[in-house]
Amino acid sequence: MKKKNFMVLGGDERNLELASLLDKDGHNVLKSHIHGLDFRNSEIIIGPLPLSYDNKTLNAHFHDKKISIETVLEKIDSNQPFIAGKINDNHILKAKEYGITIIDYFKREEMQILNAIPTAEGAIKIALERMPITLHSSNALVLGFGRIGKTLASMLYGIGANVYVAARKYSDMAWIRSLRYTPILLRELDRHIHDMDVVFNTIPSLVLNKDTLSHIKKETLVIDVASKPGGVDFDVADKLGIKTIHALGLPGKIAPVTAAMVIKETIYNIIEERGI
Amino acid sequence: MKKKNFMVLGGDERNLELASLLDKDGHNVLKSHIHGLDFRNSEIIIGPLPLSYDNKTLNAHFHDKKISIETVLEKIDSNQPFIAGKINDNHILKAKEYGITIIDYFKREEMQILNAIPTAEGAIKIALERMPITLHSSNALVLGFGRIGKTLASMLYGIGANVYVAARKYSDMAWIRSLRYTPILLRELDRHIHDMDVVFNTIPSLVLNKDTLSHIKKETLVIDVASKPGGVDFDVADKLGIKTIHALGLPGKIAPVTAAMVIKETIYNIIEERGI
Amino acid sequence: MKKKNFMVLGGDERNLELASLLDKDGHNVLKSHIHGLDFRNSEIIIGPLPLSYDNKTLNAHFHDKKISIETVLEKIDSNQPFIAGKINDNHILKAKEYGITIIDYFKREEMQILNAIPTAEGAIKIALERMPITLHSSNALVLGFGRIGKTLASMLYGIGANVYVAARKYSDMAWIRSLRYTPILLRELDRHIHDMDVVFNTIPSLVLNKDTLSHIKKETLVIDVASKPGGVDFDVADKLGIKTIHALGLPGKIAPVTAAMVIKETIYNIIEERGI
Amino acid sequence: MKKKNFMVLGGDERNLELASLLDKDGHNVLKSHIHGLDFRNSEIIIGPLPLSYDNKTLNAHFHDKKISIETVLEKIDSNQPFIAGKINDNHILKAKEYGITIIDYFKREEMQILNAIPTAEGAIKIALERMPITLHSSNALVLGFGRIGKTLASMLYGIGANVYVAARKYSDMAWIRSLRYTPILLRELDRHIHDMDVVFNTIPSLVLNKDTLSHIKKETLVIDVASKPGGVDFDVADKLGIKTIHALGLPGKIAPVTAAMVIKETIYNIIEERGI
Repeated sequence: MKKKNFMVLGGDERNLELASLLDKDGHNVLKSHIHGLDFRNSEIIIGPLPLSYDNKTLNAHFHDKKISIETVLEKIDSNQPFIAGKINDNHILKAKEYGITIIDYFKREEMQILNAIPTAEGAIKIALERMPITLHSSNALVLGFGRIGKTLASMLYGIGANVYVAARKYSDMAWIRSLRYTPILLRELDRHIHDMDVVFNTIPSLVLNKDTLSHIKKETLVIDVASKPGGVDFDVADKLGIKTIHALGLPGKIAPVTAAMVIKETIYNIIEERGI
Repeated sequence: MKKKNFMVLGGDERNLELASLLDKDGHNVLKSHIHGLDFRNSEIIIGPLPLSYDNKTLNAHFHDKKISIETVLEKIDSNQPFIAGKINDNHILKAKEYGITIIDYFKREEMQILNAIPTAEGAIKIALERMPITLHSSNALVLGFGRIGKTLASMLYGIGANVYVAARKYSDMAWIRSLRYTPILLRELDRHIHDMDVVFNTIPSLVLNKDTLSHIKKETLVIDVASKPGGVDFDVADKLGIKTIHALGLPGKIAPVTAAMVIKETIYNIIEERGI
Repeated sequence: MKKKNFMVLGGDERNLELASLLDKDGHNVLKSHIHGLDFRNSEIIIGPLPLSYDNKTLNAHFHDKKISIETVLEKIDSNQPFIAGKINDNHILKAKEYGITIIDYFKREEMQILNAIPTAEGAIKIALERMPITLHSSNALVLGFGRIGKTLASMLYGIGANVYVAARKYSDMAWIRSLRYTPILLRELDRHIHDMDVVFNTIPSLVLNKDTLSHIKKETLVIDVASKPGGVDFDVADKLGIKTIHALGLPGKIAPVTAAMVIKETIYNIIEERGI
Repeated sequence: MKKKNFMVLGGDERNLELASLLDKDGHNVLKSHIHGLDFRNSEIIIGPLPLSYDNKTLNAHFHDKKISIETVLEKIDSNQPFIAGKINDNHILKAKEYGITIIDYFKREEMQILNAIPTAEGAIKIALERMPITLHSSNALVLGFGRIGKTLASMLYGIGANVYVAARKYSDMAWIRSLRYTPILLRELDRHIHDMDVVFNTIPSLVLNKDTLSHIKKETLVIDVASKPGGVDFDVADKLGIKTIHALGLPGKIAPVTAAMVIKETIYNIIEERGI
């Protein structure tokens, strides 16, 4: 790729890391909290992940003052692609009103797939910290067989766990078998969950409800990595004495440098695909 | 599942094996070449794979006479589901005219996924037979990352090959990396194919054309498992002195019993899903 | 195995867990801190791991008073096998003077092999906690290819690391290659160590000396699991700004229940082998 | 390594391949069937594997006349190391009488380990050719946990078989478990062998005797890779209708080029270790 002039705008440590990685690749990189909001010399503006926490102002940990998204959009030129993560629909509309090419890297499939790796490692770290037995030879159940479920199952298998995966579709059952895990139909979950030493939920809807939780033994550890509100009835679990952990934002926590690398590569793919 | 009365209609050894597996599970099974075409005592009619080779008569290896599909459809009652594999669109329409519930098990996703396992083993068998070096530590390239590509890559990796996978999409690149294979963008294939000891094609379009073949070294073995006409320009390969094998129908050849098991389970899933 | 009468003598939580596991298997189990030192109704005496911390008194966390090993030996009868872990040579001699059959389960090969599993998981937990990148796709070097080295390499590979193993012998190089890791001759370590993101030492002698440490980059994490004094010059590492962790006693810390299971099974093997 | 002058003496296609590999590495290589038995310009003499089939004459497929080992030894100088494979004890003694440094590369541990790879692939090829079901999901038993047993188990596992390994020692049971195969004590073999779809024997003594064979079901395929007379009572197996294959010399057959590479590397290690 040709060397570019980037403005890295707002964000937290992850964005600093991203700026540093872009710099190492030979690009010119300005950082908004150091160089200000003058975008004139930048070809591409890289926003934070998420773009905003309050849907009004920029996620900008290292800036002293609040900056409204509106202000940012005003300063961006129509020939400066604006690439950020988890952009609110309103902001996308607004950006288009300004004639700005706005792109959400977080929606890219490859970003989600690669992000599943630090998520899975984060979940495994928690299991290693909290379980009184080894993952090796333990019964480990993964709920859901999407990107995180697949990655997590693969790593658990690689460590030596007896891996069970519960999903809805027959085609998933077939893949799970093909990969040498034990498939469980979600609707038959209650029959099998008692034997599990650890349960990892990746499904963003209430899978571990009162009923299902009542079939789990008390020694089982439940780790929920599905985004809020997650897939566990935490109150019921508490009452039943089942240990639960709702683990969110794992990539940034467990492996900030890898998380930044994933963003960088996704941005490169966007640039390449769009001929930016 | 409750015990059922099956009629296993036509087919070859694989259908005999299927009849025998159904029988072992406790069902009542009639076979058309023994018990004739009287379907009255059968709840479910299981046809062959494919239903017909000539689009007119039943694929029925063990019958003396040709049986027209039309004749079969006339004898099936509207409350007798007719389940077969690779059914021609015309026959589906015709069956519906007769009011028959006709179902193609070969279109089921789980069937395709599980069928990829004997296909992959068949391709590996050929590689073991034809290569003068071990698969272990060899450079093995898989073209395509669909069901067969995924399964084949996983087995090659398990044997110890250096696995490369070429595909079109960035999201596939991400998965390939996540699984620890080396990803290659299909459009950059020509740059990498020279280093390969064996190439497995799973893409049903002309990937290994004249141009790309010219980058392959002569010692490389090319195994094409894509259905006819395959993905290799075989004439050009021949002229260049590249060894190619077009391997078709691997499941039935390499593992007829497993192939029958896969059909049986797919049929069970159909029965369960439809409440037959 | 026939049901036995066990006395579980001294120890810490791990021995309590062991007592509980023996009990679950249907044996009669007395615990010395509850039932006292009356061994008359016990067929087999199970001591702690290690038998003693000070070479004089029993390792007995739950006893109020110090108990000398001498006192214990006096109370054991010659037909009561005494099985404990990490027994000092003096105590073995002394026991033999008393005519006691004394057996060190910690010296058993299968115990060491199975104990390597929680050790490896403990080392991985530390890596996950301390590294800013994922283990997946990282360069992870294992020093030594004994029981812990082999187990650790296998798990790191299973998570998706690029695994390097350094050892002395050509035969180890061959095994390492056969298992798809990258082999490094220990005498060529200095040439390769710069590329590593994490180094796990399992060799109980000074491998990471001043010289070799000077080739490590500052971002590299060094985890030493070799028993004291370990294989790292920690002072020099400190001065060079290299992060080091000397992780000892991992099995009891990371997975006390598994650690107890391993002891239990080793004891069963001893009983079976000796016809006790 | 510095460039050397090699004489490649006798042998079959594998030795030709070896000569060609040495040549590719930049060495000067003479071949006895082309350049004759004049060793004066050679620093190192590489004999065939085995050195002799009849204990008298050289294994020399491409020579017209028989050459006695005695003749060869007379022509070798005391400063010309003579490296060959499977050398008879008599010939070693005789060579020493002549003052020749004679070295058997086949006795080297790393050679045996790397040779296990083509042996394992050869055994898998046979299984793929002969079994009516896939190796994936089949019950595959490996008898013995030496070099071939370990390598074969790993590959079978990688393809997706349910891997069982039978061995004698508790320490092997522990390793087998650690690696996620199912361990079977050899003395309890008769209890488990009925469930197996394929049995690979690597133990060079009569393991599958009349008694044990009587517990095997008729559908089971038995592949014996142990050197003659192997570990199977083939006559009894025949009478019982059990399919057996005694597969010998697999590396040379399945992967002659890899087999030559393994020899080459072993020779390099010998040269390096001895400072030749």
